[in-house]
Amino acid sequence: MHMDHATAVQIPTFEDIRSAQRRIAGAIRTTPVLTDPDFNRLLGCNVWLKCENLQRTGAFKFRGASNAVACLEEAGVEGDVATHSSGNHGAALALAAANHGRRARVVMPENSSRTKIEAVRRHGGEIVFCAPTQADREKGLAELVAGGCIPVPPYDHPDIICGQGTAALEFARQCGDLDVLMTPVGGGGLISGTAIAAHALIEGVSVVGVEPEGAGEATLSLQLGQRVTNFRIDTIADGLRAIIGTLNFQIVQRYVDDIVTVSDGAIVEAMALVWQHFRMLIEPSSATVVAALLANPGRIAGRCVGVIVSGGNVDPGNLPFDAA
Amino acid sequence: MHMDHATAVQIPTFEDIRSAQRRIAGAIRTTPVLTDPDFNRLLGCNVWLKCENLQRTGAFKFRGASNAVACLEEAGVEGDVATHSSGNHGAALALAAANHGRRARVVMPENSSRTKIEAVRRHGGEIVFCAPTQADREKGLAELVAGGCIPVPPYDHPDIICGQGTAALEFARQCGDLDVLMTPVGGGGLISGTAIAAHALIEGVSVVGVEPEGAGEATLSLQLGQRVTNFRIDTIADGLRAIIGTLNFQIVQRYVDDIVTVSDGAIVEAMALVWQHFRMLIEPSSATVVAALLANPGRIAGRCVGVIVSGGNVDPGNLPFDAA
Repeated sequence: MHMDHATAVQIPTFEDIRSAQRRIAGAIRTTPVLTDPDFNRLLGCNVWLKCENLQRTGAFKFRGASNAVACLEEAGVEGDVATHSSGNHGAALALAAANHGRRARVVMPENSSRTKIEAVRRHGGEIVFCAPTQADREKGLAELVAGGCIPVPPYDHPDIICGQGTAALEFARQCGDLDVLMTPVGGGGLISGTAIAAHALIEGVSVVGVEPEGAGEATLSLQLGQRVTNFRIDTIADGLRAIIGTLNFQIVQRYVDDIVTVSDGAIVEAMALVWQHFRMLIEPSSATVVAALLANPGRIAGRCVGVIVSGGNVDPGNLPFDAA
Repeated sequence: MHMDHATAVQIPTFEDIRSAQRRIAGAIRTTPVLTDPDFNRLLGCNVWLKCENLQRTGAFKFRGASNAVACLEEAGVEGDVATHSSGNHGAALALAAANHGRRARVVMPENSSRTKIEAVRRHGGEIVFCAPTQADREKGLAELVAGGCIPVPPYDHPDIICGQGTAALEFARQCGDLDVLMTPVGGGGLISGTAIAAHALIEGVSVVGVEPEGAGEATLSLQLGQRVTNFRIDTIADGLRAIIGTLNFQIVQRYVDDIVTVSDGAIVEAMALVWQHFRMLIEPSSATVVAALLANPGRIAGRCVGVIVSGGNVDPGNLPFDAA
């Protein structure tokens, strides 16, 4: 670990991500990487999709949750775990906990998608609903922790960041020739781990984050040079309705080349496009990155672009596009 | 090629499948193989899914169609192509033809799924609708051929069978330790190519086909020792509403270990299960194989089972199960 003197919070190193990879190798699925000639022609570049929508629990979040629970085991910390989550981290933590014989309690906003609620329950997690604000999520979690649960935060923790970074580590081994590596940005767990791993493994790669306009506080935070925490969040991308974490923001400032924003309309178009070309339903959060490619054709023309498709937990009966 | 003296139809050899693989390597997608511990625990065996639902055009059919059109190119046969199809072969032929600057005309039953109709159109195919019977499909195609189109049959042809066999060839390279290899059976293109490739590559493997009860004519044909052509077909598995082909039946008799049937209800349960564990929407035809595993736990207990998931062309807004 490298000490960050400004705040005394440890920024994980690439070696920490390699340790996470060894720790969780038996639990996670090595997700496939897909490409498509017609899709590439349309986007004007060579895109490789790292399909974390096909990860266990339907999202990359299972990597971070598995690493966090495995670290508790290593440290000899016993007991049930708890978190707040719009859904994917909740289901991930429920399964990661179950894999170690623990129970997970998950604070979820009332407006979480039905698919995500069912997923938490299927993996044995216990849900505590709350109002859909950051403050209510944190309050709900604080109550569980007061009751004796061990908190496993969704993104603002080195163990989570290192777990999420294993997706980029895998991706670089599967497809090492990337000019650009892009991920969605919500709380910042995925982009943080990705940036650390990518810069260690792929020479000259640019790491770019994408946010919905309606949750564009990380973009604004980067511009202002300080973390904006009072952004009023409103976007279809339910997985990204979070404020970037403090450790995550430090890592983004240091390692991420750029963050761009996309409209909800562009996100929906991108979901349709991925369904047409890959027959995969990806959730709105994941589609942000494809939306950014569609919106910026000149910027990435002819280049090799790696995209981490973060999750596939949507309700097929309630898609925001016509899927036929 | 090996001459089959009983009928003078050439049964393809494994070497023909290897030639097909070289011919279509630049066009097809190497599809991923996925497994899941919870899914395996539920089924009582180790299952590997070969995800042809993630193949270009959303089904294995693109392999056979690509090989057939490439063979026309090699033979110097020019002109537009035509076929009859409940959907997946149609879309596959449309794209394979477009890749070689040709046009495809597709005879489709009126009750084809909307997703499959749209897919044929998206790839530039021209649709001719017909009544949903085998006779009407064949009559429609005969008219197109009389008009000058080159017929590319959906399954009853060595070039198609060899193309479909490349999925098993790939699968054996990705995952060579299979005790059993299972595929759905409709017209018999996939099971034929699979059986030839699997027996050449995987020592001691059993090749098992699965049909819906409502399209169980191949099972009946095997039992009777002759091809049943007057079976009244009625099943949710729209991709399997076909009578097994003549060449296909010969190959099945020689190389396939068994064919079993499953109910439409079991097919729907299997679709739900794959969505829950893999976040993939697979079409009813593909789910037959998972349904067979669920129905026969004792028979495959503890074994390594390879399953070719044939396609993912479903209408997400009209699923026969609750996907949340």
